[in-house]
Amino acid sequence: MLGPAEAPSSPRGKRSGGRAGNLRRSGGGAIHQAPWTIPENRDRPVEPLDEEAVERIHNGAMRILEEIGILFLNDEALGIFKHAGCDVDMETQRVRLDRAFVMEQVKKAPKTFTITPRNPARTVTVGGDSMLFVNVSSPPNAMDLDRGRRPGDRESFRDFVKLTQYFNCIHLAGGYPVEPIDIHASVRHLDAIHDKLVLTDKVVHAYSLGKERVEDAMEMVRIAGGLTHEEFEATPRMYTNINSSSPLKHDFPMLDGAMRLARRGQPVIVTPFTLSGAMAPVTIAGAVTQQTAEALCVIALLQLMRPGTPVVYGSFTSNVDMKSGAPAFGTPEYMRATQISGQMARYYGLPLRASNACAANAPDGQAVWESVFSLWACVSAKANVVYHAAGWLEGGLTASYEKFVMDCETLRQLIHYMQPVPVTEEDVAVEAIREVGPRGHFFGAAHTQARYETAFYSPFLSDWRNYERWSLDGAVETPQRANKVWKQILAEFEPPPLDPAIAEELAAFVERRKREGGAPTDF
Amino acid sequence: MLGPAEAPSSPRGKRSGGRAGNLRRSGGGAIHQAPWTIPENRDRPVEPLDEEAVERIHNGAMRILEEIGILFLNDEALGIFKHAGCDVDMETQRVRLDRAFVMEQVKKAPKTFTITPRNPARTVTVGGDSMLFVNVSSPPNAMDLDRGRRPGDRESFRDFVKLTQYFNCIHLAGGYPVEPIDIHASVRHLDAIHDKLVLTDKVVHAYSLGKERVEDAMEMVRIAGGLTHEEFEATPRMYTNINSSSPLKHDFPMLDGAMRLARRGQPVIVTPFTLSGAMAPVTIAGAVTQQTAEALCVIALLQLMRPGTPVVYGSFTSNVDMKSGAPAFGTPEYMRATQISGQMARYYGLPLRASNACAANAPDGQAVWESVFSLWACVSAKANVVYHAAGWLEGGLTASYEKFVMDCETLRQLIHYMQPVPVTEEDVAVEAIREVGPRGHFFGAAHTQARYETAFYSPFLSDWRNYERWSLDGAVETPQRANKVWKQILAEFEPPPLDPAIAEELAAFVERRKREGGAPTDF
Repeated sequence: MLGPAEAPSSPRGKRSGGRAGNLRRSGGGAIHQAPWTIPENRDRPVEPLDEEAVERIHNGAMRILEEIGILFLNDEALGIFKHAGCDVDMETQRVRLDRAFVMEQVKKAPKTFTITPRNPARTVTVGGDSMLFVNVSSPPNAMDLDRGRRPGDRESFRDFVKLTQYFNCIHLAGGYPVEPIDIHASVRHLDAIHDKLVLTDKVVHAYSLGKERVEDAMEMVRIAGGLTHEEFEATPRMYTNINSSSPLKHDFPMLDGAMRLARRGQPVIVTPFTLSGAMAPVTIAGAVTQQTAEALCVIALLQLMRPGTPVVYGSFTSNVDMKSGAPAFGTPEYMRATQISGQMARYYGLPLRASNACAANAPDGQAVWESVFSLWACVSAKANVVYHAAGWLEGGLTASYEKFVMDCETLRQLIHYMQPVPVTEEDVAVEAIREVGPRGHFFGAAHTQARYETAFYSPFLSDWRNYERWSLDGAVETPQRANKVWKQILAEFEPPPLDPAIAEELAAFVERRKREGGAPTDF
Repeated sequence: MLGPAEAPSSPRGKRSGGRAGNLRRSGGGAIHQAPWTIPENRDRPVEPLDEEAVERIHNGAMRILEEIGILFLNDEALGIFKHAGCDVDMETQRVRLDRAFVMEQVKKAPKTFTITPRNPARTVTVGGDSMLFVNVSSPPNAMDLDRGRRPGDRESFRDFVKLTQYFNCIHLAGGYPVEPIDIHASVRHLDAIHDKLVLTDKVVHAYSLGKERVEDAMEMVRIAGGLTHEEFEATPRMYTNINSSSPLKHDFPMLDGAMRLARRGQPVIVTPFTLSGAMAPVTIAGAVTQQTAEALCVIALLQLMRPGTPVVYGSFTSNVDMKSGAPAFGTPEYMRATQISGQMARYYGLPLRASNACAANAPDGQAVWESVFSLWACVSAKANVVYHAAGWLEGGLTASYEKFVMDCETLRQLIHYMQPVPVTEEDVAVEAIREVGPRGHFFGAAHTQARYETAFYSPFLSDWRNYERWSLDGAVETPQRANKVWKQILAEFEPPPLDPAIAEELAAFVERRKREGGAPTDF
């Protein structure tokens, strides 16, 4: 503790005027941002399991694949396995895979790969120490402090895409940040992907929800990049994420989409939906075992089809509230499951995807502790792709404008945190300490003056003014401050440059595909 | 992301009635608590520095002690150093210590020790993997949602002491959780320590603020424990925490108190107040170097006086807002400084103290992310003693009732997190997965039924009900829920048992010392 003699009020007492405001302006932007950068997470991961326990989970996953089998509700996938000599029951659609086969296929997957969007400066590396943040994806609802919670629409969709583009701490424009339900489902993907390709220049994603949607997405990414078909296929340009229908089942459209992307060399994240106590065992070890089996069998399929297909081992294992069945996130179980998933991903030499998830209904304290615990899990697991990194609330049912901004504040802090701490002789600063001596202060020291502008992370959303000033200025709490930030960002938003010829080609494609009726909606 | 096909609403849809309420009753208590337990933090620490960089900080600290020296504003301390042959300038009160001497003394400190309060069941181990949480200490103000922010008084002091006793996740009753300024300073320590010894049975602390306060505190702890003087001195029964007056200075009363406790075998936490950019270099490496020098010289003094004195290396290094001079907490710099402090503590074989600190003015999102980042730092640094673990706001200027409850929720989650994850063959659950199969659900499985009651951590403050139910019930956010919790705890509070004869002796001591005038107030 601090004794009264050194009460922390003293340095505050020295402040000459406080901060002008929370919205620091720099170059006309709503906030001052560090440039786009991909953090390198060089810390040792936290590993809850010893080697023997990792082997036990691996062995359990192999036994599931060998003895119990997985349903592949997709005849093409079944045929591919059958052709490779696997144990396939075409009638029950059950596939059993032996461990030697699975491990042989999984070994073909690259440890790291890049994805290059229409702006090559936004190319990302997936795997290794690299850590990528993806916007919130797929909530049916949008929420903000002014308008409350409401079904997503194209306007809110576009707002979140703009926030995704604006924040340099968001690396991938993942799934729809909110479902634009005012666009008819048959053509929704055309407008939505068009908006994403025009309003952002970051990597985009395609939902694996039927042939037309997937093929249209690939074609639009190709057009937006100004690429030939050969160029599109030469290196990853986009990606999809598929979920299992746990327990032990992969549905038709997810497998179909995954195979369509894999055939063209595009990455697939395989994320089983293994909520412990509901669709997976009530033990974390059991849930991660099942997750591993469900992920590896699809990864094996894709490697069998096209060796070297870029894939990611996805972890979404969390627990449910056993009283209600509601999914919980950012829990101690989520943290440990994510870290153990990291151990399994490294065991198989695969990149790891996890999430910044929470169950809270409002951007309040619970939302933040659940989210920061989730991020702690992601960092300590060495997750390479962090889904829902900004904006997710309510177990994924709502995309929150204010939470998006709050999450970006914490993401920026983590990006700064992941920078190495310099420890040269100059940093150790014995000469500066000698110069200041026991009766001086470091504010004015030359050592400080040479470094103070960039020495520390500078938050855009924290209010560090003293209580009196903060109160006089309305005692504005975090979500209300975030509310001001997103409004200013949207008011000032300018889309990234796009060649007019490409914009025209993209629009023409959308128009044509709409005329053709888009995609069937009977899924 | 989750595709619409597996939108996370589905498990929520299955809930049959939600939770009865957030205040789960069990045995009449306000909340259902796990029993008192001391978490063992067995994960590998995060270590930002390599061995060479650790040596560079060590070398810098040694050079500060050898070449620059530290002011000891206490003639007794100066005399002890002089008697040992150290380079002491009695006029300027500057002490220079050579590294061989410092390291020889520091080596005498125990790696771990226990502290036994009046209830031996509340004995704690300091050091090793053990992690202890201490209540907020020393704010001048108290705050709650009903009465707002106001100067601390005896009533709020007692309230926080009751919360400290109530929550099993709080292990030590540290400094005054809020300053009871309605008690005259001359006798405040008598009433305050009396309240603490009566309302709690956990380890208490003495402020090092003058001979009378320290001696009275030791005597009261001895009386409360029913101990002879010999028994009191035989093993640690309480502790103090002293802060340097950085840069490079230790004040009279802090040193006096530390030496008084050390002489009687009681532990001393030495916590330099090295805010980077203000009282310490603007570089984290420099601030931790200075912190190390300032801590080790006092630890050397205490070991010189009484070899084996239990001591703790205290880290309070954080950064200031360079625009205003305000201290910041829970920042990336705080996290790294704490982790590096952990490396230094292990280098010297000393237990580590750090803090759960934040700069926010309200128990909002900022408060929570700063606090959880601080806790992340403490866990990843392997801090043994976490000061201000519950209730701190506003850089330590305010103790918040609601924040106390919110912090206890996160502490309980971390205590659960630190339990080992079981990974037996039964936990891996291949047979349960076989039994449920691809078309079943784990809710009803025997494997689940045998474990569901204790499988997962059950929060007392999170609201996991769905949005509709939460809204219908008033859309109550986290601080408002915490407000209800502390009121119920205080309404139901019962002090721990205390032998009436001891209670009488304690009261008589306080009365006598008050008659004698208590302590001088001219410090």
